[in-house]
Amino acid sequence: MTELSDGVSTRPLPSLDSTGRSALFTDARTANTFADIPVTDAELTEIWELARWAPTAANTQPLRITFVGRGEGRDRLVPHMDEGNRAKTASAPAVAVLAVDTRFHEHVPTLLPFRPELRDAFEANEELRTNTGRFNSALQAGYFILAVRSVGLAAGPMGGFDAKGIDAEFFPDGQWQSILVVNIGHPGETPWLDRLPRLEQSDVVRWA
Amino acid sequence: MTELSDGVSTRPLPSLDSTGRSALFTDARTANTFADIPVTDAELTEIWELARWAPTAANTQPLRITFVGRGEGRDRLVPHMDEGNRAKTASAPAVAVLAVDTRFHEHVPTLLPFRPELRDAFEANEELRTNTGRFNSALQAGYFILAVRSVGLAAGPMGGFDAKGIDAEFFPDGQWQSILVVNIGHPGETPWLDRLPRLEQSDVVRWA
Repeated sequence: MTELSDGVSTRPLPSLDSTGRSALFTDARTANTFADIPVTDAELTEIWELARWAPTAANTQPLRITFVGRGEGRDRLVPHMDEGNRAKTASAPAVAVLAVDTRFHEHVPTLLPFRPELRDAFEANEELRTNTGRFNSALQAGYFILAVRSVGLAAGPMGGFDAKGIDAEFFPDGQWQSILVVNIGHPGETPWLDRLPRLEQSDVVRWA
Repeated sequence: MTELSDGVSTRPLPSLDSTGRSALFTDARTANTFADIPVTDAELTEIWELARWAPTAANTQPLRITFVGRGEGRDRLVPHMDEGNRAKTASAPAVAVLAVDTRFHEHVPTLLPFRPELRDAFEANEELRTNTGRFNSALQAGYFILAVRSVGLAAGPMGGFDAKGIDAEFFPDGQWQSILVVNIGHPGETPWLDRLPRLEQSDVVRWA
């Protein structure tokens, strides 16, 4: 407990221990091969149960998730992946197609009950609606990738796919638009490529 | 250790324990007031040190971070925030202005050494460059928010600000463009609003 200057006490927030930091950030890697160990629907639901709580602008939550199992669904997905991504997408125990709901604002009266009129503001302003949906679904995709890692699974996010092809196949009414495909599973044989370099602090961080 | 069918052994990945899941997802909240406890430059560096490792498309890493301390820098920032965000931005111990580097592709030869020609592909295709920068910087903003929580600090992300005003003030050469402002600190008195509802699984998740 920390005593504030005005006499109010506040409990310090929990933080991640070294295992948690390793699992999500410092030692986590993008898997390129997967072990032949199934990923259950319960595990996939667990990922969503974590990711759903992280924040979005005006609580809009525009991200949608399609979990594509092995078999018929996967056969419909793989041809739309770039050639270099097909083998790993075919072999992954589970695959998530992440999408933005272009009609996310229909939920505003439920999600932001003290500002229901924001629904109509989004309806009237296509640029605001598109930018809000695109930005916040990408933000949520970041949460999703770390949520996959949080449950002890490896994530293989891929931007290399024919988005229009996936959308026509999986979202024919046009309301959802694919933004990222994520392979999910336990790492297989030689799953990691050499780690690529990261930018230096002086390239990324400024102080003002 | 799990024995694979082909005789190769793989070590299970670590996962987050309940404290870690609580800290990042299930009990974490957006702080609206901050305690009068400083946030050090070392803590802010620690946030960046975690967030930098999470994945981006073609390892592009377009997110840039400006940490704005109290004093002169903060005085330049606050007037560009929406009125409802000014008091909390003024009082936060630390503030991060997250931005996209519109010239992120200059780093491709270093960051993706086996595909240096991708730099020129981005240079030649403005739509690809803009979309890649926007999507991946938002993805990294998601990582950043969870990295703030990982070090035991509360994050207050805000989309309500005059982006052109911030860019003119902090990034006058036009190369960086602000995408999100995040207050950072220890929660203060009555820091949490009532938790807003989240979408149901049936609204978000499909199975294919």
